[in-house]
Amino acid sequence: MNIKIKQKLTKKWFLKLQDIISNNIQDLEKDYGSNIKFKKNKWKFGEFRTIEGKVIEKGGVAFSNVVGKFPKNFAKKIPGTKNNENFWSSGVSVVLHPVNPKIPSIHFNTRFICTQKSWFGGGMDLTPCLIDKKERNYFHEELKKMCNLHNKSYYSKYKKLCDKYFYLPHRKEPRGIGGIFFDYKMDNWEKDFLFVKDVGVIFNFLIKNIIRKKMFTKWTKKEKEIQLLKRGRYAEFNLLYDRGTKFGLNSGGNPEAILMSMPPTAKWK
Amino acid sequence: MNIKIKQKLTKKWFLKLQDIISNNIQDLEKDYGSNIKFKKNKWKFGEFRTIEGKVIEKGGVAFSNVVGKFPKNFAKKIPGTKNNENFWSSGVSVVLHPVNPKIPSIHFNTRFICTQKSWFGGGMDLTPCLIDKKERNYFHEELKKMCNLHNKSYYSKYKKLCDKYFYLPHRKEPRGIGGIFFDYKMDNWEKDFLFVKDVGVIFNFLIKNIIRKKMFTKWTKKEKEIQLLKRGRYAEFNLLYDRGTKFGLNSGGNPEAILMSMPPTAKWK
Repeated sequence: MNIKIKQKLTKKWFLKLQDIISNNIQDLEKDYGSNIKFKKNKWKFGEFRTIEGKVIEKGGVAFSNVVGKFPKNFAKKIPGTKNNENFWSSGVSVVLHPVNPKIPSIHFNTRFICTQKSWFGGGMDLTPCLIDKKERNYFHEELKKMCNLHNKSYYSKYKKLCDKYFYLPHRKEPRGIGGIFFDYKMDNWEKDFLFVKDVGVIFNFLIKNIIRKKMFTKWTKKEKEIQLLKRGRYAEFNLLYDRGTKFGLNSGGNPEAILMSMPPTAKWK
Repeated sequence: MNIKIKQKLTKKWFLKLQDIISNNIQDLEKDYGSNIKFKKNKWKFGEFRTIEGKVIEKGGVAFSNVVGKFPKNFAKKIPGTKNNENFWSSGVSVVLHPVNPKIPSIHFNTRFICTQKSWFGGGMDLTPCLIDKKERNYFHEELKKMCNLHNKSYYSKYKKLCDKYFYLPHRKEPRGIGGIFFDYKMDNWEKDFLFVKDVGVIFNFLIKNIIRKKMFTKWTKKEKEIQLLKRGRYAEFNLLYDRGTKFGLNSGGNPEAILMSMPPTAKWK
């Protein structure tokens, strides 16, 4: 298939996915009785939507379609840039920081990137403040089931990559309970795209169930305190290690869009 | 003078300075009626003192004396490590995040570092949340007077270095109102040491005046909100750019001691 058609199809999906996810979250807000909607912020390379709700204290759902040239030094690490640093990329990123400390912070991303090669990347992971083994098992079991529909090797491979990536070496602790994470996926475009779409679909299904299950539960002052400290760790990860954040900020991206992932509040002892 | 004697004298001064600064802050807390004292945390290479007071919401005064070996790659950027990466260092670092949004966040450091060469570094700067031209002028005027006692060129040179260092390129904004900052100072050991001691002395004098002047003033909810957002920027600077933080975390330092500089709370819109 022609690369232009692949770009058209993936971009169309990501645009649709942004709508599906935003609507899903607005529905949760509505069920809670808040009726708060996303604010839409357009910028040069896309649209990031932000919400300050009663269920989601601070959330962002961003669609982007960036066309540009990688800086020479950065390009070295990127496939298909040997003689040409131009790239095309499109994707959806989601970060949700819920009010209720019993609901984990939620992160999701899927993207399609083209240089002289082209590949998919993405994944999702949860950062709970409080231990909930049932939720953890549920999340991982559902991800495994979805992965197995595509390839029996995916889940364990992508789970490992996720654990490796979302780790704070200076604290010697994982960011959260992981999930799945994949990059440079270029096995078979049609199959890969089906997988990427399923990752988006299961994400919507999972967050609805995980958030709805707990959004009406009460929490203690101590639990809120634990949440604020955990968010400090979240901020540390994003600013110290996250590749996307680093790349975005160093390449003159829109800081408001890039730092959409930051927690609404954080605390350090 | 023998390097061992220089090390002994600087270490002795830094230990004393830690006491002077901690006592100074405890006196301010006392005047305010809080009577809260520093908690002393010993670790392998020194002692960092932390306070959660009524005037200083979160503050740290750290003495360290680290003896070790720079990682090869890092050593390349450090003078006097061509054939030997061993180093000796000692210094005092201070970060104060006041409760009252009218009082700026305060940062100070002085250090003596020895490789096959040896030099002083340090400085101080203020990060106000609200504009106060009078305070800014006072702070800079006093620093200038002190610098001029040593060398007429110091103030403008070290002010420029400070402005350059405490800048957030991704936000296109300075961290605060600057101050003075110097590094690799190895002009004349005796004179340099006199200057470094004066930097410590003026710091004590200035923070007492700046904090006391405002610690009894009231603030609005809006001013507190501005403070929390400004602290978000402070967290961004420390985690994205600060060389000391980066080096400490990457070289397996004590994360509690290194991240002593983080604000107690921060907010992102």
